[in-house]
Amino acid sequence: MKKIINDPKRVVEESVAGFGRAHADLVRVELEPVHVVRADAPIAGKVGLVSGGGSGHEPLHAGYVGFGMLDAAVPGAVFTSPTPDPILAATKAVDGGAGVLHIVKNYTGDVLNFETAAELAAMDGITVRAVVTDDDVAVKDSLYTAGRRGVAGTVLVEKIAGAAAERGDSLDEVADLAERVNANARSMGLALTACVVPHAGEPSFDLAEDEIEIGIGIHGEPGRERVGLEPADRLVDRLLEPILEDLPFGEGDRVLLFVNGMGGTPQVELYLAYRRADEVLRERGISVERSLVGNYITALEMQGMSITLLKLDDEMIELWDAPVQTAALRWGR
Amino acid sequence: MKKIINDPKRVVEESVAGFGRAHADLVRVELEPVHVVRADAPIAGKVGLVSGGGSGHEPLHAGYVGFGMLDAAVPGAVFTSPTPDPILAATKAVDGGAGVLHIVKNYTGDVLNFETAAELAAMDGITVRAVVTDDDVAVKDSLYTAGRRGVAGTVLVEKIAGAAAERGDSLDEVADLAERVNANARSMGLALTACVVPHAGEPSFDLAEDEIEIGIGIHGEPGRERVGLEPADRLVDRLLEPILEDLPFGEGDRVLLFVNGMGGTPQVELYLAYRRADEVLRERGISVERSLVGNYITALEMQGMSITLLKLDDEMIELWDAPVQTAALRWGR
Repeated sequence: MKKIINDPKRVVEESVAGFGRAHADLVRVELEPVHVVRADAPIAGKVGLVSGGGSGHEPLHAGYVGFGMLDAAVPGAVFTSPTPDPILAATKAVDGGAGVLHIVKNYTGDVLNFETAAELAAMDGITVRAVVTDDDVAVKDSLYTAGRRGVAGTVLVEKIAGAAAERGDSLDEVADLAERVNANARSMGLALTACVVPHAGEPSFDLAEDEIEIGIGIHGEPGRERVGLEPADRLVDRLLEPILEDLPFGEGDRVLLFVNGMGGTPQVELYLAYRRADEVLRERGISVERSLVGNYITALEMQGMSITLLKLDDEMIELWDAPVQTAALRWGR
Repeated sequence: MKKIINDPKRVVEESVAGFGRAHADLVRVELEPVHVVRADAPIAGKVGLVSGGGSGHEPLHAGYVGFGMLDAAVPGAVFTSPTPDPILAATKAVDGGAGVLHIVKNYTGDVLNFETAAELAAMDGITVRAVVTDDDVAVKDSLYTAGRRGVAGTVLVEKIAGAAAERGDSLDEVADLAERVNANARSMGLALTACVVPHAGEPSFDLAEDEIEIGIGIHGEPGRERVGLEPADRLVDRLLEPILEDLPFGEGDRVLLFVNGMGGTPQVELYLAYRRADEVLRERGISVERSLVGNYITALEMQGMSITLLKLDDEMIELWDAPVQTAALRWGR
């Protein structure tokens, strides 16, 4: 195992500490228990947004803490759900009296631990609603999930719901909107290589030199099928077809097209894939109104990508465009 | 070779086309010959900034085209200098009558081809000045360079010079400032793995499972030495020591600390490295005033990182903070 780390058991703690120093203008970092809070939290009267999950998916979630997006992020160990304790601490830290929204990717451990934290927060008089994201069309039920997995659509939920909270929407309004975004987002990914969890020290799965896993999860969970080496355009089609059929997306729809890198794929490949995806959508009369291309939700150094489509309405476009100031997404302010 | 590509010979063209579609609000893309131009170029009375070089280092340079940074980028084939023809086309496209600055990384082919393009532009009545970046302290002279190589400091030159051009500085003022930034920037990198150039199809060099190359270039050119697996903190020290000695940086200095990923290294490792670098600088009484952490100048999917220190003055800080709106760097507007 070759990694730029010290002690495998201290990777998350040391990395989050570095994140806090690099972005002291945006966040403060608490290490016992580990959570990352927006520098100016709590904000009186504003709904607080908390997300979290296993580490290894950076910039998700700490990279999205700041103005117009999350109020706190709770990183667990690599690919391991955070316990209720730091989720509760983060929830308390961002409660400005208007309630707190938990944005939870659909993995059994995450869902359970966020639920427990919400119950504990309720005892302290904090109203919590939770939105569980499940945008991955690849598989229903998997190693770590009942139902679909929450993947890259989560980034879009966090951005749009965060903008709604920033403009003063109520907890129910923000939560309903987050659910609407999740309901209109569909994703699917593929992997060319596995990744190595630091405390495991070995690749999380095996993929031969001439194999590609279609429908991979962000922890290397199995997807739909393994295929041989194929041209990029064919791979893009393999991801897009099930996405387009699922909602479904059709002529006249306006979408946000999100091509996400899994961590180890060069940007030149992501834009090459974007080109094909954009072409397919145009052919179908679907209008690409907004785009996002880059490493936004990753699986450590895994080579691969995912494609996400979000069916947009006017409100979502307005909130997507609204100012955001975080380590990983920043515009308009 | 596993890559998300179609024809290895068309990688750059297809990727740049995708980039243009994803960022049509920022740039327009010309494919014959390939160059990327700011959407609103030329801007009358503003100095135009053009950079370029081999592809494979994305987001450098196309990701920095936009308000407050570059006016055009000229991507060559992967790890191959662009020819004078597209450099000339880009120079003409951004000339607003106030002259054009070429920002060139110090590689023999790049320097020659930008010089030729500048001579041709002069025949068309366009005044061109060139700044050659050479911030890499690792080696003097190398496979592709006489003198030091231009690496991550180039991003800082482009940002700060771009802000100066945006506020209306003259060509000489922008060029002198770019030279001052380069003269105050020092970088050094390391690699854990090699990368595969698409049209080559094989790793650009060999690195054993227990070896790390210290002082690597952004094309996998050899560095200073190979070492065994070591803790991250020790690796950071190996990069920082020659950087600190070279300028030198000392007590009371204000710096921008830039930890750059080579493309295949997870963000969690970059922030972990940032933590140690920040710690070392504090111990020496050097004040980290600004930071940048992420994949900003890469070598395809290479695992590794570089550290850059820029000694700041008040003007550089002001220009660093000035609004920028590009695909890869965006704030304040």
